[in-house]
Amino acid sequence: MAKKEIPDIIIGRLPVYLRALRHMEAQGKHTTSSQELGEQVGISAAQIRKDLSQFGEFGKQGTGYSIAFLVAKVREILNVDKVWEVAVVGMGDMGHAIARYQGFHDRGFRVAMVFDSDPTKIGEQVGKFTVQDTKEMGVAIRKAGIRIAMLCVPAAAAQQVANQLVEAGVKAILNYAPINLNVPRGVWVQYLDPTVGLQRMTYYLD
Amino acid sequence: MAKKEIPDIIIGRLPVYLRALRHMEAQGKHTTSSQELGEQVGISAAQIRKDLSQFGEFGKQGTGYSIAFLVAKVREILNVDKVWEVAVVGMGDMGHAIARYQGFHDRGFRVAMVFDSDPTKIGEQVGKFTVQDTKEMGVAIRKAGIRIAMLCVPAAAAQQVANQLVEAGVKAILNYAPINLNVPRGVWVQYLDPTVGLQRMTYYLD
Repeated sequence: MAKKEIPDIIIGRLPVYLRALRHMEAQGKHTTSSQELGEQVGISAAQIRKDLSQFGEFGKQGTGYSIAFLVAKVREILNVDKVWEVAVVGMGDMGHAIARYQGFHDRGFRVAMVFDSDPTKIGEQVGKFTVQDTKEMGVAIRKAGIRIAMLCVPAAAAQQVANQLVEAGVKAILNYAPINLNVPRGVWVQYLDPTVGLQRMTYYLD
Repeated sequence: MAKKEIPDIIIGRLPVYLRALRHMEAQGKHTTSSQELGEQVGISAAQIRKDLSQFGEFGKQGTGYSIAFLVAKVREILNVDKVWEVAVVGMGDMGHAIARYQGFHDRGFRVAMVFDSDPTKIGEQVGKFTVQDTKEMGVAIRKAGIRIAMLCVPAAAAQQVANQLVEAGVKAILNYAPINLNVPRGVWVQYLDPTVGLQRMTYYLD
């Protein structure tokens, strides 16, 4: 597939469509329309049709989309028709929450190992996991073939840990640390900084 | 200020610029360039200049930007040259982590009250806060004049709690629940769903 041709902003909307479609599915619905999906996600029906048309013909004019078919297709496009193992680094409050989070279930991800560099945390039990020493991280990640990590360390440590993750073969980092990461080409980073989300909204408040 | 004229995508980048600028400031730097800032945040220098020019003239050709001046300006634009009080709803693992999070410090926000509907959690101490009953939420938020909330409840409860928040006068919701919210015009929602971030990256992985 000619992946480079599709704008990243469209890719960024697909997980949101998928989440809404699975929600409809859970409610027992079988078909939907770009109008209905658009109302769910706050995006225009025209935009949704345009986005989906990048990947083929998924619905028929007038009859709408089969939800199950569209879910299967979008999961396939996003490569989440399988389960990816994920490493979580940093077992502070946020890392704890992530390690115990149930929301990845059935959405393509499974936390497989957790790390911290603090001797008082190494060996600790967090949810189903025993916290491993960050020193062993490179070897463990490489051995397990893990390519995705969630970074929950303090900002001051984030770049150095990211470097180690990249060195170990990680290609995708979900970064909770409030700092921009420099990574080589071919490594992807997404940011989850609550302050950025809040500041984006306060602009609009009086 | 003619706020409606500036595309939201530009507003969305300002907090990222601000974060990088404050990081430079913390490192003792006094001036920067759009080139340097661009390398920090992974956005082109031309885009940064274009974004900032929407709000006035902040730098001089050849001499770059005064970091302190630009920080002050961007904080002013984003309305974070003051401290907003925030309510956190849902004291599961994520709500706990948020209530105890130190990263809002000096970035415009302060958690002021926390809520849960679970009788076993109400009255519990989380960080500096005593968990209050969600039943008292509307009155407490209105009385305090709080206009920003973070939603950390399960997906199944999120829409109903969002309705209560809006009813209480909340205008901006940072939603950690993996579900889209329907809110009236004039209320802003930002989403922090880790799975969405992960799925956006797996598209690019083989």
